[in-house]
Amino acid sequence: MNKKKENKSSSRLKIIPLGGLEQIGMNITAFEYEDSIIVVDCGLSFPADDMLGIDLVIPDVTYLKDNIDRVKAFVITHGHEDHIGALPYVLREVNVPVYATRLTMGIIENKLTEHNLMKGTKRKVVKFGQSINLGQFRVEFIKTNHSIVDAAALAIYSPAGTVVHTGDFKVDYTPVFGDAIDLQRFAEIGKKGVLALMCDSTNAERPGVTPSEKTVGKTFDTLFTEHKNTRIFVATFASNVDRVQQIINTAYKFGRKVCVEGRSMVNIIETAQKLECINIPENTLVDIDHIKNYPDEQQVIITTGSQGESMAALSRMANGMHRKITIGAGDTVIFSSSPIPGNEKPVTKIINELLRKGADVIFQDAHVSGHACQEEIKLIYTLLRPKYSIPVHGEYKHLKAQARIAESLGIDKENIFIMSSGEVLELNEEDARITGKVPVGAILVDGLGVGDVGNVVLRDRQHLAEDGIMIVVLSLDKNSGQMVAGPDIVSRGFVYVREADELIEEARSIVDEAVWRHLDRGVTDWGKIKNAIKDALGEYVWRKTKRRPMILPIIMEVY
Amino acid sequence: MNKKKENKSSSRLKIIPLGGLEQIGMNITAFEYEDSIIVVDCGLSFPADDMLGIDLVIPDVTYLKDNIDRVKAFVITHGHEDHIGALPYVLREVNVPVYATRLTMGIIENKLTEHNLMKGTKRKVVKFGQSINLGQFRVEFIKTNHSIVDAAALAIYSPAGTVVHTGDFKVDYTPVFGDAIDLQRFAEIGKKGVLALMCDSTNAERPGVTPSEKTVGKTFDTLFTEHKNTRIFVATFASNVDRVQQIINTAYKFGRKVCVEGRSMVNIIETAQKLECINIPENTLVDIDHIKNYPDEQQVIITTGSQGESMAALSRMANGMHRKITIGAGDTVIFSSSPIPGNEKPVTKIINELLRKGADVIFQDAHVSGHACQEEIKLIYTLLRPKYSIPVHGEYKHLKAQARIAESLGIDKENIFIMSSGEVLELNEEDARITGKVPVGAILVDGLGVGDVGNVVLRDRQHLAEDGIMIVVLSLDKNSGQMVAGPDIVSRGFVYVREADELIEEARSIVDEAVWRHLDRGVTDWGKIKNAIKDALGEYVWRKTKRRPMILPIIMEVY
Repeated sequence: MNKKKENKSSSRLKIIPLGGLEQIGMNITAFEYEDSIIVVDCGLSFPADDMLGIDLVIPDVTYLKDNIDRVKAFVITHGHEDHIGALPYVLREVNVPVYATRLTMGIIENKLTEHNLMKGTKRKVVKFGQSINLGQFRVEFIKTNHSIVDAAALAIYSPAGTVVHTGDFKVDYTPVFGDAIDLQRFAEIGKKGVLALMCDSTNAERPGVTPSEKTVGKTFDTLFTEHKNTRIFVATFASNVDRVQQIINTAYKFGRKVCVEGRSMVNIIETAQKLECINIPENTLVDIDHIKNYPDEQQVIITTGSQGESMAALSRMANGMHRKITIGAGDTVIFSSSPIPGNEKPVTKIINELLRKGADVIFQDAHVSGHACQEEIKLIYTLLRPKYSIPVHGEYKHLKAQARIAESLGIDKENIFIMSSGEVLELNEEDARITGKVPVGAILVDGLGVGDVGNVVLRDRQHLAEDGIMIVVLSLDKNSGQMVAGPDIVSRGFVYVREADELIEEARSIVDEAVWRHLDRGVTDWGKIKNAIKDALGEYVWRKTKRRPMILPIIMEVY
Repeated sequence: MNKKKENKSSSRLKIIPLGGLEQIGMNITAFEYEDSIIVVDCGLSFPADDMLGIDLVIPDVTYLKDNIDRVKAFVITHGHEDHIGALPYVLREVNVPVYATRLTMGIIENKLTEHNLMKGTKRKVVKFGQSINLGQFRVEFIKTNHSIVDAAALAIYSPAGTVVHTGDFKVDYTPVFGDAIDLQRFAEIGKKGVLALMCDSTNAERPGVTPSEKTVGKTFDTLFTEHKNTRIFVATFASNVDRVQQIINTAYKFGRKVCVEGRSMVNIIETAQKLECINIPENTLVDIDHIKNYPDEQQVIITTGSQGESMAALSRMANGMHRKITIGAGDTVIFSSSPIPGNEKPVTKIINELLRKGADVIFQDAHVSGHACQEEIKLIYTLLRPKYSIPVHGEYKHLKAQARIAESLGIDKENIFIMSSGEVLELNEEDARITGKVPVGAILVDGLGVGDVGNVVLRDRQHLAEDGIMIVVLSLDKNSGQMVAGPDIVSRGFVYVREADELIEEARSIVDEAVWRHLDRGVTDWGKIKNAIKDALGEYVWRKTKRRPMILPIIMEVY
């Protein structure tokens, strides 16, 4: 009896988020059934405020490396950084095939090319409605809508049941490019029975529905009518191909030429053109070097930098740091975006800068979200009728908001799981429960270094950033044990002091005394001398300045 | 003729913002007429993101120091940090009397006591409707409403005309404490003729009117009804005495005891009690040590930390770092505040943390702004009918929004002035124009140091924070000029390396070679040797790691 039960238990489906919650954006989830593991998405995250100097953050995939012989593939929902960005790093260690839809794969391939990984990576473009077999799993790609073309939900079929993962999505009945979300297919799958739904929570706090992307096109028409005589700049997300399409449509309608500026946007638009995901009328796109040959009222410049990024094109054009274009009095700047939480301050800064330069700035109404609001989430739950709910994508408060929606739709509270990174959820038709935890973590990427900046280094950077450093150097004679040079004190990032300043002079004599006190007593343990320096100097500096710079004693031995 | 004109010109009123725009919050404005200068407000600002390690920012008042014999007084509109916070620093250098209303003065006196300045500072409490004579000026304090009790607008009468400065204000017909804004007096002054209006712009982008503070009281009643059986925490701004009053009113109604936690809030409530600006029913306020003697459903804890400040009471209670109270499952936490722009991320962080701990978090509807929206701003303009408009308080985009309102009300575009710090606006009934600029600036306060952290130090901190530091030490023999110890390399905040690591070993030999190359050629200029070290090591580290740590060579001389 027990044995049978154990067997059954070993054949449950396991769902293991390997990133996520603790590090928003790092979307990567393992699905495991017996000898088969598939991984949905492989995103990166941007550093938190206290990760000083860090460029980006990728997931620790130790669990996948340890089970490499069972890992069948990465299946990718769409081409945003938080779903594909870690692939170039992770594929080096977990080299399995990548499956994605057309534009998603196009963007992945740009990355792989950059990292010299094209040759070594198996890739397969999947069509909507198509299924792929991956060991014990079958994965079907279902058309959805999102703020990037070719976004997919995944139906993951396993012997233990079907899990639907929405990826990032919204319901757009009138999308700009391609079809509306395939609600019929969601209904069919729901009819056959869905074990669990993993649904996008980003907008789960917002009532109602997200408007169609097409509504933004109408806004552009209105704004272009209101600003007939000025140059028009539109700032938006580099990857929002549909948005760029609509700006181009309106520009064309108003007889304006369009120039696209910002490296990431240029790359994605080129890829979209190659894959025919965007339709640009002839003679509309103009190179940045030629746009100035047209009068102001015939120019539109689409640009990156809508999040206030200081190195992006918009910032540089606003600050006069751009080589070719400067925004000034008389220009109209439309923000076709809203600030991602945390970016409010830099966005406001650039708006103020643009207004100060005399530009007319429009920062409302020219954007819609790419994520489903409450009524859309309810629709998906109602079409799929899952037994279990596993809210995904978003901060804890968003996941919690979706959990409340799921409950309101009649899903048992104990069948709703807000999972933490590394938790193992085992589930089948009979029950579901957290059964363990696998090692997970965030790996910091700084320059070429992947994972060589840890907590100690970050703590040091924080300390250095707050109060700077005081370095004490001295030389001891190897034979006599006497101090033959120093102590010298050098500081950086502390306060503005010259070497002759009273503070430094007094600090020197305090350190000098502390060192000699030890040397005279015959102390030869450098550790003890260093601690004495730290204590004496630290106490003195705190008393004089109420600051605690890092104190770093360096002792040299002279032969 | 010319002479007469000149004379006239020298008898204009001058308005000089000494802080403000470039450093939001540092509200301090000089008004000058012939031999008289008065200063409205003396606020501090909090450091921008790139001011690493800085505690606060105060205005450079060189202009006041240079004209100290003409400076008559500080007149203060209300008791918020951005209007009074720099007083303890500035009064040391510009020791003139301070005029303010009752609670405002109470809060100022708390500060002066802390800084040991009570004895040396002349203070005078002013009643609403009262005028004070200050040289060529007369200043009348007019009742307004704001998110702190006893806020005043100022009518500044000079021979050149009357300027009305609103301070921070809203129009509240049903305030919690004291009277509604004295609109009759505004009308009277307007009738007599107003030269210029300096009006609060904070909410100038928002249409409509700001709801009465009393509406929040009703929300509390509703929320307390809905959460009858749980402990209730309310987080709000320390200085919002009216808000605390309303929480206490509702608590009393529901038979709950109230405990106030957070040093700044405790201080202000004590001052408000002493000055009878708050009315607390007997046996309602309970000490934090005794609140736990009551059952959960009879407790209310009012706390600081609504902005997500990591060291404030709310954060500590959420993270289990508070000595006496821990927030957990079953508790209700009401945010009676909205995030100040830039604080969205820390506020969201604490909300997520509270939800994770199982608390019920309410972060909407329990707050109203203390600033006037568009219709209120229009009301003030219409009552005063000023000739000139000088929008104050807010970022550039807010000032610009008020300028648009002023224009829509018929004020000539050329009579509207968005001023920069230090600009001198000269005005009288005939005309107004910017005629010059006085020295202004932001002084950084770090620990006990006022102004000793400048751009070089901040740049160093930024550099240290990004990539850390590598220190190279070596000793040269004074006589032979030979290297007798080192080079040793120590790093902090760079990457995690041990001294024996390959990177450091190779770096050492590269530095060693660079130094000997110079010594062998007979180079004795330490500057040259240091530069050679920086170049060689910098190039090597960049090549190996794509990082640029600060490189600090230290050469010691051994006798």
